[in-house]
Amino acid sequence: MESFNQLKAVSQLKKLTENTFDLTDSNSFNSKRVEEMCVINEHFKLLFATEKLTQEVIDQLIELSHEADVFTKMKAMQNGDVLNFIEGFESEDRSVLHTAMRDFFGDENTGEKAKEATQMAKQENEKLKNFLAQNDKNEKFTDLVVVGIGGSELGAKALTVAMQHYNKPNRRLFFVSNVDPDNAAAVAQQVDLSKTLVATISKSGGTLETLTNEELMRQHFIKEGIDPKDHFIAVTGKGSPLDDEKRYIERFYIWDFIGGRYSVTSMVGAIPLAFCLGHDQFEEILRGAHYMDKHAMNTEARDNLPLMSALIGIWNRTFLHHHTVAIIPYSQALGRFAAHLQQLDMESNGKQIDKMGRHVDFDTGPIIWGEPGTNSQHSFFQMLHQGTTPVPIEFISFSESQYGDDCDVQGTFSHEKLLSNMFAQSMALANGHKSDNPNKNFPGNRPSRILLAKKLDPFTVGALLAYYEHKVAFQGFIWNINSFDQEGVQLGKVLANQMIDLFSKKRAKSLKPDDLPVGQSYLNHLGSFS
Amino acid sequence: MESFNQLKAVSQLKKLTENTFDLTDSNSFNSKRVEEMCVINEHFKLLFATEKLTQEVIDQLIELSHEADVFTKMKAMQNGDVLNFIEGFESEDRSVLHTAMRDFFGDENTGEKAKEATQMAKQENEKLKNFLAQNDKNEKFTDLVVVGIGGSELGAKALTVAMQHYNKPNRRLFFVSNVDPDNAAAVAQQVDLSKTLVATISKSGGTLETLTNEELMRQHFIKEGIDPKDHFIAVTGKGSPLDDEKRYIERFYIWDFIGGRYSVTSMVGAIPLAFCLGHDQFEEILRGAHYMDKHAMNTEARDNLPLMSALIGIWNRTFLHHHTVAIIPYSQALGRFAAHLQQLDMESNGKQIDKMGRHVDFDTGPIIWGEPGTNSQHSFFQMLHQGTTPVPIEFISFSESQYGDDCDVQGTFSHEKLLSNMFAQSMALANGHKSDNPNKNFPGNRPSRILLAKKLDPFTVGALLAYYEHKVAFQGFIWNINSFDQEGVQLGKVLANQMIDLFSKKRAKSLKPDDLPVGQSYLNHLGSFS
Repeated sequence: MESFNQLKAVSQLKKLTENTFDLTDSNSFNSKRVEEMCVINEHFKLLFATEKLTQEVIDQLIELSHEADVFTKMKAMQNGDVLNFIEGFESEDRSVLHTAMRDFFGDENTGEKAKEATQMAKQENEKLKNFLAQNDKNEKFTDLVVVGIGGSELGAKALTVAMQHYNKPNRRLFFVSNVDPDNAAAVAQQVDLSKTLVATISKSGGTLETLTNEELMRQHFIKEGIDPKDHFIAVTGKGSPLDDEKRYIERFYIWDFIGGRYSVTSMVGAIPLAFCLGHDQFEEILRGAHYMDKHAMNTEARDNLPLMSALIGIWNRTFLHHHTVAIIPYSQALGRFAAHLQQLDMESNGKQIDKMGRHVDFDTGPIIWGEPGTNSQHSFFQMLHQGTTPVPIEFISFSESQYGDDCDVQGTFSHEKLLSNMFAQSMALANGHKSDNPNKNFPGNRPSRILLAKKLDPFTVGALLAYYEHKVAFQGFIWNINSFDQEGVQLGKVLANQMIDLFSKKRAKSLKPDDLPVGQSYLNHLGSFS
Repeated sequence: MESFNQLKAVSQLKKLTENTFDLTDSNSFNSKRVEEMCVINEHFKLLFATEKLTQEVIDQLIELSHEADVFTKMKAMQNGDVLNFIEGFESEDRSVLHTAMRDFFGDENTGEKAKEATQMAKQENEKLKNFLAQNDKNEKFTDLVVVGIGGSELGAKALTVAMQHYNKPNRRLFFVSNVDPDNAAAVAQQVDLSKTLVATISKSGGTLETLTNEELMRQHFIKEGIDPKDHFIAVTGKGSPLDDEKRYIERFYIWDFIGGRYSVTSMVGAIPLAFCLGHDQFEEILRGAHYMDKHAMNTEARDNLPLMSALIGIWNRTFLHHHTVAIIPYSQALGRFAAHLQQLDMESNGKQIDKMGRHVDFDTGPIIWGEPGTNSQHSFFQMLHQGTTPVPIEFISFSESQYGDDCDVQGTFSHEKLLSNMFAQSMALANGHKSDNPNKNFPGNRPSRILLAKKLDPFTVGALLAYYEHKVAFQGFIWNINSFDQEGVQLGKVLANQMIDLFSKKRAKSLKPDDLPVGQSYLNHLGSFS
């Protein structure tokens, strides 16, 4: 395939950067623009009047998506074709089938691999449903400790925090992820072990942090005289070291076509979500994600929510050269959502070679960060308005609150104040403001867009999850990079093992001068504290 | 004063960027460098062998700090001189006296204003000590809800999370910050109101979010038949609308010389920290902060921890043009520390004019973000190693764990694995790795530094807090910007009030076509969901 920079639309778009839309122009940024610059469907609205876009730019971005053949690729992905590869080099060579984990609601994908994967996912869901029904009957476990890291933690955490309002009574959830021993120690102090289920999650069954933390948790049970055998389940690949019926009440399976950061709708997310919310509500999350899967695959570009967001992101990143994107949900429940998106986006698209193994000569995945509004207005928005580096923003918000527990203070409800603040920030960043006092001057012309939905319920959070999964996938398709591997984490693992070796050797007094000398110098720095 | 770009050291440093140190050079990045490139004192080590620094660059950076007269300014700040101003324009014109809030441990600052401030801080501390002793005696309050936003939340939250291990038994802490009504609703469901103390924190007494959330909380008390009068205290300025003995059991005072983001050691942080940890432990935090205040003011540049970190930060930001800094603590307890630093750093130094009101022609405060390691290794480190935009990193770590609850798995303890991973990441980012498989190629030459302390205890967390406060202040002194105001948040407030007005008018059916038309278009978008 042609590389990104050879696409015709790319040269057109580069030309269009010479004269970008000026958001401070009050003749251009008007209500007509607000009403036109959007994608609207029955569940979501994407409002992008405050992006530096003209109709011409939008046309070329859509042309770019066609040149990159994004719909063919999206269909191929959902059908189970092998998309996770680098041509001509050793690579994972896998299908990418997170969409098959929720293809339960009619109009199934037709690929053989997709159908097989869906069948297997249905089995695991059935197993989980029965397991939880049994638990409800016996009232055995009220606390769940998830032992897992990265993709085994972040997505599930983001969604369980978001859905806390819908929790069943008497459900508590904890995560032990960090190899920092204080993480497990703090959790062990808070749970009632006799009523605690521990789910160890590792696809390979070989993740250092997870195995170590599982051992720490097992020792806490043993110390309290409880047999851990009756309290542990595993989520892992078939035949992995964790697939051991002697050590786990039950094993739930995942497969190599489910990447960690795309695993929320597999058993990885299913277990914490269904434990807290009940399996019915978890199915609503799946239904929402499935809705977005179909929307992403079957909706033409200009009406396609994740594709339009992907294209605007590429405009900001690759053509306007912004290094970062701030995710600002005006929803306290989405407090951990940016942390999930950091992994999803940065681990997928933080790449420097394309699918042919060629070094890219353009900017790929940006730095993703963010905190909820209105809180962030009182934190870092000073810099967003008046700092020397503009930051494109993705706002997320909902026209209704979750709890409906609100009150009228000075003529408006809190939720109205919340939404007012979001719209105001978007306008202030775009318009700016001139003042004779240079300290009260706002340059404006800073881009943002708003994703709006009705209410953050299970269906919507599932759709939101998939919206970002597909935004990231579309961007990878267009940049022609492999969004589904993560070779960049390997070097650190190798060096960490060498450092761990130094600690062992130091204890055994068998350190030699040529054992990783730089590492030994670090060890010495450490030593003088202890 | 001369502007930053007129300083001699600035032109020298610009020249030195033409030939920066190459961290992938194995002849140069060796153990000698690791042992030399550091600042060491009795409590902290700052290790910067993995920064793109030569001795020449360091010399010029130190020269820069002298040209900018940083020690005179630091002394002036701690003595209470008016530093918060823009010359020739209307501005806050205030002293900056957070250091006076902990100047209780000998060798007091000699400025009149500083002495006065310290005297007032002592009074408030005494009041708080008595209030908490009374509470311990009566066993009245076990839960504390802090109602506050921005500086009234983030620092206190970061530190109470960090110090959870040291909590007194039977203490629970909640924050209601966001005007999102779901924030207050979720907290109200979790607390036992009969045993709940609510602290409303707002210096001006006029923060929209805080007043609204206080009202929501009061209504919960009333609904349960409890008189809120016996459950609320206030932290505010003397004479503010919150300084009302009829509505609050007690009022604790702060003053206009304490900026929100610098308020952790004032009553803003004192109340949650002393409530959870006891006043003795809170004093240890003050002692640690005071230690760093003296260190920052009295230690020559090359041995000065916050100043060296500030200078390296300016090298990376202004000379090497990195837009962001990732804060990566290898400590789960510091899970919310980056969120505090986002406000502290970005609200202080995310500025575009200097202290003379001139538009700056260089990059000021960077984008601050981050999550704890090892978790972040399994999240966004892919991008840090192989993405197209390098990200300078500040690692933070401790040679001992807090709980001491650890175990030997495969020859090493978890805490050793934790530290191994941090050192390994720093080396991997610096060295990189060459491979014939382009996907296994690591460019390296990516800068980071490590701050190391013995253990995350109250003294250390206080010192760490002040380390960053002074790093930020030193950077502001050198860039010659005002790090103590936040005019950039005003425009959003004005527009938010206009939006709130639209909601009111819509309800009253008195909207007119020329009332903020763009805002009305947003309102219409919203309406079709409800």
